Amino acid sequence: MSKKRCEIICVGTELLLGEILNINAQFLARGLSQLGLDLYIQTVVGDNEARLKKAIYDAMNRAEILLFTGGLGPTRDDLTKEAVAECFQTELYLDQDALNEIKAFYALTKRVMPHNNEKQALMPRKGQMLKNPHGTAPGCVMWDDKGHTAFLMPGPPREMMPMFDHEVVPRLKAYSDSALFSSVVRVASLGESRMAEMLQDLMDKGQNPTLAPYAKDGESSIRLTARAKTKEEAEALIKPVIAQIRQRLGKAVYGVDVKNLESVIADQLTEKQMSLCVLEAGTGGLAAKRLQETDRAEDIFRLGLSANTIEGLYKALGEGNLPEDPTQACRELAALAQKRFQTPCALVINQYGSSYACAALLNDKTAERAGAFPLRGREYYSLQAAQNALDALRLLLEED
Amino acid sequence: MSKKRCEIICVGTELLLGEILNINAQFLARGLSQLGLDLYIQTVVGDNEARLKKAIYDAMNRAEILLFTGGLGPTRDDLTKEAVAECFQTELYLDQDALNEIKAFYALTKRVMPHNNEKQALMPRKGQMLKNPHGTAPGCVMWDDKGHTAFLMPGPPREMMPMFDHEVVPRLKAYSDSALFSSVVRVASLGESRMAEMLQDLMDKGQNPTLAPYAKDGESSIRLTARAKTKEEAEALIKPVIAQIRQRLGKAVYGVDVKNLESVIADQLTEKQMSLCVLEAGTGGLAAKRLQETDRAEDIFRLGLSANTIEGLYKALGEGNLPEDPTQACRELAALAQKRFQTPCALVINQYGSSYACAALLNDKTAERAGAFPLRGREYYSLQAAQNALDALRLLLEED
Repeated sequence: MSKKRCEIICVGTELLLGEILNINAQFLARGLSQLGLDLYIQTVVGDNEARLKKAIYDAMNRAEILLFTGGLGPTRDDLTKEAVAECFQTELYLDQDALNEIKAFYALTKRVMPHNNEKQALMPRKGQMLKNPHGTAPGCVMWDDKGHTAFLMPGPPREMMPMFDHEVVPRLKAYSDSALFSSVVRVASLGESRMAEMLQDLMDKGQNPTLAPYAKDGESSIRLTARAKTKEEAEALIKPVIAQIRQRLGKAVYGVDVKNLESVIADQLTEKQMSLCVLEAGTGGLAAKRLQETDRAEDIFRLGLSANTIEGLYKALGEGNLPEDPTQACRELAALAQKRFQTPCALVINQYGSSYACAALLNDKTAERAGAFPLRGREYYSLQAAQNALDALRLLLEED
Repeated sequence: MSKKRCEIICVGTELLLGEILNINAQFLARGLSQLGLDLYIQTVVGDNEARLKKAIYDAMNRAEILLFTGGLGPTRDDLTKEAVAECFQTELYLDQDALNEIKAFYALTKRVMPHNNEKQALMPRKGQMLKNPHGTAPGCVMWDDKGHTAFLMPGPPREMMPMFDHEVVPRLKAYSDSALFSSVVRVASLGESRMAEMLQDLMDKGQNPTLAPYAKDGESSIRLTARAKTKEEAEALIKPVIAQIRQRLGKAVYGVDVKNLESVIADQLTEKQMSLCVLEAGTGGLAAKRLQETDRAEDIFRLGLSANTIEGLYKALGEGNLPEDPTQACRELAALAQKRFQTPCALVINQYGSSYACAALLNDKTAERAGAFPLRGREYYSLQAAQNALDALRLLLEED
């Protein structure tokens, strides 16, 4: 089948009032892009029948495949299915299977289905139901006689995203003859612009794969995206470029297609069968929280302590006075914690003013970092201090 | 001047590829809503001249005021200004003031302006420059002879948002004869649907103010929005409805137009000149993190401890065996921590499996909660356990 043009139409007055952020549009756009399908327009329209139908007709003039989110609820405000059915000239009927699914969802949550919800079981004659295991609103796919296909999905991202992945993507694959495959190189403790500078020529000449730098939550990454018929073909295109990036950035690269820095650390610790404790001043316990959210937390995380100041931490351990040098203070506290909590590994972070110091202790080896941040506010300082400390620990574990 | 219809057009292929989240659209939509201006359609279009011009002509057929983001950069891909000028039938000329602003921005960051950037100093004959102190791309406003106005703003939110607030909003005010004012009633430990049920009749009849329920991060809230000429007039409309909501929901309401639950607690503790320690099992130290992020953290937060299990916390304090009953264990640990860390207030949370228990201790008064969650995953459990514990503490402080 030849390549089709897609459009996304998000329906909901709450989007036009700016009450919610339209994360659905990005999710669907990325999904289409990964399938190698063309998307030229996204539209947001409110719960108004005339304007919605106008938007649908406009989109039908430009594209063959329409993806809708929102407007599948049980109330009179929810118009998407009715409007698309009218534009596609197909009839809606009460589908017994859909009705049973909705009733089953209510039974599961021990409630009785309100009469209103029957409307959600209306399905198009020229179409199919799309299952929604996460809510009461099933989706549907509709066809018309002129080659248009519409996918109607619910508005809540928690319901829409799995429906797209499991019900829509398999159907969309028929329309695509190639797909995009991505790998992400994760980089710690190197700013996005510095990283981009070091990779500028690779980025400039990168066509397949393309290279796109990102910065998020205190770290940088670079996404390589290849267009190919198979995953293997894409990997063969991506692999040599990753090798070049690794050569340029060296140890700043902490992983490729890994979840995050803390998961890499948790895996390293698990492999060594080691546990750690984390003591933090000024970061709100951020590094400990990140480590406790890894899948390995039960194996590797012993204890986290957090206070406003490093003196507060020291006092909690019941000892005398700390050295004045911030890095030395972190080192002493790490040694103390290692002994007190009997963990081979201890990480201490002190974020104060717009500066930080940290020390990672692994048996008898130490890594330290300290520095000052540009004036950006507490959230940024916490993020950067935790990120630097975790990265220092990651390198210490790598070298071990 | 009479009320005008607005449209938002976000320009950028990166949006169509799903590479970035369109937070600009929400920001602008909310801004227009607060100004009481009507927005019926938002469009996202890529960096393609023909499709962009088509989108502009379509929008000019539907609306009088067009807001654009993106496509003001120095490269050939950046087409917004050129396209709008063509659709609006106005000429672009090299504006010396704009050029000087751009050169000054480069001087500030100690760089020389590349020749490309001259393009950014092109300004419309029928229009004005909009200043951008945060980047190289000035914005502009354009008019045509048929009553259309276009505001062109850069794509990066960091540049766009202040430009909208400082340059666009003052100009838009001329088009609006009323504005929206909102108050938010914050509710802890009461689900959104249960809350909505208790307020259904108020929500149904609510026209001015309208009532909209929300659920976020484990708590519910209700936004009251009044349309009025002045803030005072709006407050007079909103106040009696808030009183009714308070009467219905009772102590579940923890504040109106307050930042969050932890800030309310921090204020209560500050008023009583008390500090607290927080011990958490299974939540990743979430409650402590929330309290440490308040403005009062330095005054009220003494120490946070977090571990995977409550036994891990108990062991860190170096004592014997905990009681088997989860709530009793929390209570004992709270008493122990109160003594050890010398804080009048101690909060202990134990999140395990899909259940939780917690105890708040304030001098010699205790509040406890325990319960089980529907099966939703770790992040949800942590959120709910921390929220319930903080709410128990909030009520204890209120009663004190």
